[in-house]
Amino acid sequence: MKKARRHYRILMLTTLTLGLLVWYGTSHSIADEGMWTFDNPPLKQLKERYNFTPTQEWLDHVRLSSVRFNDGGSGSFVSPHGLVLTNHHVGRDQLQKISTSQKDYVKSGFYAKTRAEELKTTDLELNVLVSMENITERVQSSVRKDMNEKQALEARKAEIAKIEKESLDATGLRSEVVPLYQGGEYWLYRYKEYTDVRLVFAPEQQIAFYGGDPDNFTYPRFDLDMAIFRVYENGKPIESQHYLKWNRQGAPEGDLVFVSGHPGSTDRLDTVAQIETQRDYAYPQTLKTLKQRVEVLRRYSSQGPEQARQAQGLIFSLENAIKAYNGEYQGLLDKNLIAKKEKEEREFRALVEGKPDWKKEYGSAWQEIETAELKEREMLKPLRFRSLQRSFSELANYAQTIVRYVVEVKKPDSERLDGFHDAQLASLKFLLFSNAPVYPQMEERLLADGLRESLEVLGPNDPFIKAALNDRRPADTAHELITGTKLADPALRKSLVEGGETAVASSNDPLIVFVRKVDPMIREMRKSFEDNVHSVETDAGEKIGKARFAVYGKAIYPDATFTLRLAYGTVKSYSMNGTIAPPVTTFYGLFDRYYSFNQRPPFDLPARYLERRERLDLSTPLNFVSDCDIIGGNSGSPVINRKGELVGLIFDGNIESLVGRFVYDGTANRAVAVHSGAMIEALRKLYDAGALAEELEGKMTKNAKVG
Amino acid sequence: MKKARRHYRILMLTTLTLGLLVWYGTSHSIADEGMWTFDNPPLKQLKERYNFTPTQEWLDHVRLSSVRFNDGGSGSFVSPHGLVLTNHHVGRDQLQKISTSQKDYVKSGFYAKTRAEELKTTDLELNVLVSMENITERVQSSVRKDMNEKQALEARKAEIAKIEKESLDATGLRSEVVPLYQGGEYWLYRYKEYTDVRLVFAPEQQIAFYGGDPDNFTYPRFDLDMAIFRVYENGKPIESQHYLKWNRQGAPEGDLVFVSGHPGSTDRLDTVAQIETQRDYAYPQTLKTLKQRVEVLRRYSSQGPEQARQAQGLIFSLENAIKAYNGEYQGLLDKNLIAKKEKEEREFRALVEGKPDWKKEYGSAWQEIETAELKEREMLKPLRFRSLQRSFSELANYAQTIVRYVVEVKKPDSERLDGFHDAQLASLKFLLFSNAPVYPQMEERLLADGLRESLEVLGPNDPFIKAALNDRRPADTAHELITGTKLADPALRKSLVEGGETAVASSNDPLIVFVRKVDPMIREMRKSFEDNVHSVETDAGEKIGKARFAVYGKAIYPDATFTLRLAYGTVKSYSMNGTIAPPVTTFYGLFDRYYSFNQRPPFDLPARYLERRERLDLSTPLNFVSDCDIIGGNSGSPVINRKGELVGLIFDGNIESLVGRFVYDGTANRAVAVHSGAMIEALRKLYDAGALAEELEGKMTKNAKVG
Repeated sequence: MKKARRHYRILMLTTLTLGLLVWYGTSHSIADEGMWTFDNPPLKQLKERYNFTPTQEWLDHVRLSSVRFNDGGSGSFVSPHGLVLTNHHVGRDQLQKISTSQKDYVKSGFYAKTRAEELKTTDLELNVLVSMENITERVQSSVRKDMNEKQALEARKAEIAKIEKESLDATGLRSEVVPLYQGGEYWLYRYKEYTDVRLVFAPEQQIAFYGGDPDNFTYPRFDLDMAIFRVYENGKPIESQHYLKWNRQGAPEGDLVFVSGHPGSTDRLDTVAQIETQRDYAYPQTLKTLKQRVEVLRRYSSQGPEQARQAQGLIFSLENAIKAYNGEYQGLLDKNLIAKKEKEEREFRALVEGKPDWKKEYGSAWQEIETAELKEREMLKPLRFRSLQRSFSELANYAQTIVRYVVEVKKPDSERLDGFHDAQLASLKFLLFSNAPVYPQMEERLLADGLRESLEVLGPNDPFIKAALNDRRPADTAHELITGTKLADPALRKSLVEGGETAVASSNDPLIVFVRKVDPMIREMRKSFEDNVHSVETDAGEKIGKARFAVYGKAIYPDATFTLRLAYGTVKSYSMNGTIAPPVTTFYGLFDRYYSFNQRPPFDLPARYLERRERLDLSTPLNFVSDCDIIGGNSGSPVINRKGELVGLIFDGNIESLVGRFVYDGTANRAVAVHSGAMIEALRKLYDAGALAEELEGKMTKNAKVG
Repeated sequence: MKKARRHYRILMLTTLTLGLLVWYGTSHSIADEGMWTFDNPPLKQLKERYNFTPTQEWLDHVRLSSVRFNDGGSGSFVSPHGLVLTNHHVGRDQLQKISTSQKDYVKSGFYAKTRAEELKTTDLELNVLVSMENITERVQSSVRKDMNEKQALEARKAEIAKIEKESLDATGLRSEVVPLYQGGEYWLYRYKEYTDVRLVFAPEQQIAFYGGDPDNFTYPRFDLDMAIFRVYENGKPIESQHYLKWNRQGAPEGDLVFVSGHPGSTDRLDTVAQIETQRDYAYPQTLKTLKQRVEVLRRYSSQGPEQARQAQGLIFSLENAIKAYNGEYQGLLDKNLIAKKEKEEREFRALVEGKPDWKKEYGSAWQEIETAELKEREMLKPLRFRSLQRSFSELANYAQTIVRYVVEVKKPDSERLDGFHDAQLASLKFLLFSNAPVYPQMEERLLADGLRESLEVLGPNDPFIKAALNDRRPADTAHELITGTKLADPALRKSLVEGGETAVASSNDPLIVFVRKVDPMIREMRKSFEDNVHSVETDAGEKIGKARFAVYGKAIYPDATFTLRLAYGTVKSYSMNGTIAPPVTTFYGLFDRYYSFNQRPPFDLPARYLERRERLDLSTPLNFVSDCDIIGGNSGSPVINRKGELVGLIFDGNIESLVGRFVYDGTANRAVAVHSGAMIEALRKLYDAGALAEELEGKMTKNAKVG
């Protein structure tokens, strides 16, 4: 499962700093490696290895058929009438939000037989990348030679905010400046936004996530991890000019395939000093926190079925993150990996040192980063544990966002905290005013545990702890805050935001009062981090980025940034566990696993699979693997053949792929996808969703499916 | 697959010395560890963990139902009329030997509908352990204090030969003295021998060894690795008093189960010095040799279907050995394993040193072994590569056995080479006069490659090479020898043996002439090894064995010796590849693998599986795993429940179990078995073998199946 990693990366932005702010391009492209930007596709490799040269038309079509799920996943248009295919686990936050104690769509699945039955989601925003513009020169020239690192960071940020604002005003499109190659390039990406997104189909969680946490990130796999939404504008389904034709035959072993999606983040060319910080501090701390929260949620779940329903989504996400981070962490503990990284860094630096110009311009960057890392390690505890987000409480997060919002928007755009620039406000408000349900009892437990952990790590005399707890117990504090706050009501959140600084300053909502008290200390740490670490590493990172272009040219791809990328590869088995992993799995294997574990959860099956088993062609391929280079955020990406047809749906990487955050190894790194044939087979034979299958296969007669 | 490892261990006895001659008991028994002798079953563990205490009657019944396949495997009686169940891969040498270019039973399988159709095997000998007698005192007291190590070895060997001869004369039973706990104990084991063994049923090789070399030693697995023979005496099926009742329900997860069989050899308490010799010399050399022979056999196979048929058996065995040795070798390369061994040895030695008596008696043993190992390493090349057996030529092996036979039998029994004692001659002659087919063209290639390798390693000036090649090319030498020899005829072999030294001395059969010339140099090396290494290590090993009893008592089990052992454990899944391996697999999984690999070998299926698929209950368990402690030689062993019923048939260990030669790790070491239910399901629904299934399930009406 891929999605949640991106999700928590965003959530924990200021606190966890898992390889956060510096981006490196890769130097060597061996195997079918790389998450390539659409302006720089791997034409040479495709030509040499597969004798394939995508036309500009092919590239544009694939790009415009690709969809970003703004809460952390990918998808694609698959019909001319706005159908979007993604993973169940990408859509499941939305399923949870439209479910109630009476109707649990996560558990039961959903199918809208008519358009009228399609269910509007609460706060799902989809983006389509409609244009890309290289603005490197403009951003870089905003920094003057006489500026120090802190001033340089501010100048860059101001210029970026200005560019985004200008673009938004001029085009009305969501506009984001994306630093690539750790600042070697800056691009302005413009997106068409969609916010009226309706649920058409989701299978039962049990089959979407078959095998549960044990099978997560493993292969062979047997998951129908799909969900289908439809995009509306002005109350009507959009007519998608660009969508992927469905090929239910899938791709045979050895066939060239592509993945077009939004990988979240990679740290493939972090310096060794940065990697060591992650290995020795970030991963152990983060894993510990996540496990503690899961423990709290499990206790909460055990109180009853409704509590279990409320907690299931966050448990799923946290367990997913734990398994992913653990895989990455194990990779970092492998001495061979670090040795490889050290060798690469040594060689790169030697090449830079070898040319006096380069040495003068870029040579100091690694030492600068190392010095900054030492500073970061010193401030890690307060940086991470003076935090509300670390509790995973939604209400605390709302409160913090509101308190910051009213202050930030009064500043000139260029001076605001990231996240509060004019060009970002629409998306922010869409989430902040969401009418998604909040579960106060669960919130209370999460906030209490977050405060407990902060107290434990920081000690009772830390100013943040003093302000937050005032010598009271974390549980009592959380109880008072959550039972007292009215922020679960989106109308209140809206009125506070609209009332501005005055409204927030005079609010006596206990959570607002609380955040007003503690947030200054959180911001102070963040400021200190920016001034002492982030600004230095941004500057040094840009030097390394330029050095990389100088040494290796642009035959490289940048680290992932949750922006659209093209990966390529072939359907391919691999050595595993002493034998060979099959290129595909089948429905036979699903039933094997069911009976192999004696029908026991998480290997049980929805009733329809047993009742309707005879209808299925059990030899239909269910999942398959390719060596396309993906990572978290790619969940829901289409797998596409040369003809631009959809042959599969990415939903995971195998356990061997987790180390791919740091290094791609084509021998065992595999992307796991649902087979196009399995989705049609299941829709038709198990879900009585023949009409939907017809639409996907392009067989729908005009107006045949109008609600 | 387990069997061939024992086979080649025997074959390569004098040359490969992979952990050969010293036996150590294990000191700590954690998890469900241990291959226990029937005189010392793990009663304490069974009582404490499973509240089960086997009665003497239970133990006797299980022992007398257990069968040793003398060519390297295990089996059990499963009907009152002499039916013996084992693995296809244990019986496959015999299938190969009764096949012809017209009729390939390995490929097509076999089923005798009537007793008249049951097929007599050529040279299969089965043994049943009918009595065990502790003769430690007698053997140990044959060594006088004033003897040096060489004399002590001779004294022990003489006494053992004498004991065996006396027992044979007195009882008529096959009698073997077995050193246990590296000479801490000696036991006299007496066996009932059966040599009229007829094939009743074997499935197609394709399903018995489904997944081929890739899936070998792996799990999840889908093999119907079974064969059924019937034991005759005086032309009639024996009436077995002791046999295992069939329980087609198998054993549920968590159930206590036993394995009663004949593990070949383990080296769990080799000293670190011995392990290092294996790691640095034995394994790399052996793996290289085996790969070279497979390469030769593959080239031979490519000449046509008949050549492929001839070579398939040896290719199977060698590939099996390569995969097993490689797993063991990888285990040895793991620094953690060596560190663990060093720690154990350090602790054991410290305990011995801590008590003056022990220190005096046993303290020097480790250093003595280390010194002997250094000598062994010096002589390794001539010891290993002055060899005919290393070529895997059957004819060369026959010639060598004949040349030695006529000399040895004239000596007093006690002075003969091991293998030629009176008590061993019946079995030896049974094999030597076998009418199993010989494939001369294949023999020629094997012998040529063996000579080529010896030349390469030893150089042209080695006396063995000079005598063997006389400056000619290996291929020419092998061609002349194999085309010239008449030893493929068992009558000639018999007449030479019966003609004695005179007949052999005057024979001008080129292979006999050749062996007369080179064998003295082989024997010289063996003698030097015995005098300088083996005698020292036998002596030192006995000290360590006694020290172990002194320090740890007898709550331990001895290393495996291809004698009957009882292992215990439960049906149990384990962590694998990031997820959980299922406790059982099903026929569904078999078809999944078939379609997952697009029906391609080695994942193709016999036609009947596709034609008759609808008849099968696909949810029938096919294979299952338990944490019983087994190793090569256990192939074909019954898996038995508390009631003494047969619930499965051991056929392999998982890849994680291979390191079990050196150390047992219960977290991932698993024994893989065919489920009792799968065998019945297949016999009835796929093979039209209902009558056989009836007999196995004890439902046969009297005389219902008389040929």
